[in-house]
Amino acid sequence: MDCIFCKIANGDIPSTTVYEDDDFRVIMDINPANLGHCLILPKTHAANIYDISEELTGKAFTLAKKIAKAVQKSTDCDGVNILQNNGEAAGQTVFHFHIHVIPRLKDDDVKMSFGSFKTDSESIAAIGEKIKNSL
Amino acid sequence: MDCIFCKIANGDIPSTTVYEDDDFRVIMDINPANLGHCLILPKTHAANIYDISEELTGKAFTLAKKIAKAVQKSTDCDGVNILQNNGEAAGQTVFHFHIHVIPRLKDDDVKMSFGSFKTDSESIAAIGEKIKNSL
Repeated sequence: MDCIFCKIANGDIPSTTVYEDDDFRVIMDINPANLGHCLILPKTHAANIYDISEELTGKAFTLAKKIAKAVQKSTDCDGVNILQNNGEAAGQTVFHFHIHVIPRLKDDDVKMSFGSFKTDSESIAAIGEKIKNSL
Repeated sequence: MDCIFCKIANGDIPSTTVYEDDDFRVIMDINPANLGHCLILPKTHAANIYDISEELTGKAFTLAKKIAKAVQKSTDCDGVNILQNNGEAAGQTVFHFHIHVIPRLKDDDVKMSFGSFKTDSESIAAIGEKIKNSL
């Protein structure tokens, strides 16, 4: 398979690595949202959160918590986003599961805005029922 | 403590609940980014990812994976964002740890854009070293 994040995670392509264990490599994003932006990459391939195992999901985000603390301490940022995108429509550009740990500064140029979707409580309740029944 | 998400998570304020167990309640966001937007709320209070336990972090995001699948199936969306904000600068508005599971559609009105930060590889390597040493 020709997956760039498989190659980076397994050390076949060099990266600025801040952490590594048997399951993951954590690297500095080369196109950061802000200075200190890290990516958590599992070493085994899974395209997205649907495909990765429950065990690795738990481990990956527990690691994200540790990285978030280290990023906060190291950059003295005002906040941190943990972001994990699935599908091109969600902003995923490399189709190997990864978690962004993004330091945020007051009035930075990162945009994460939503909340303007027009709907009503009946529609929300109806889709809620559908989700409940899909679990 | 006067935390609205504590009250919702523990059932003292009604919500459209799609899932509940001993540790978490998953509700429909009343101001959704898109129809099907869910929030995962731990029942015990923690302000953010720095404060929540490792055990609950792992459980919360493993639950997010299950919810993401159910949201995808129920809404037939084109993608899903898993987003967890820490600090006002990161877009956190309620200071009780929560995870957004956001269905995405091609050309929707949700904005999650970044990547334009001007820096260089030396600065990235330097902050990477600092993060590594903070772990």
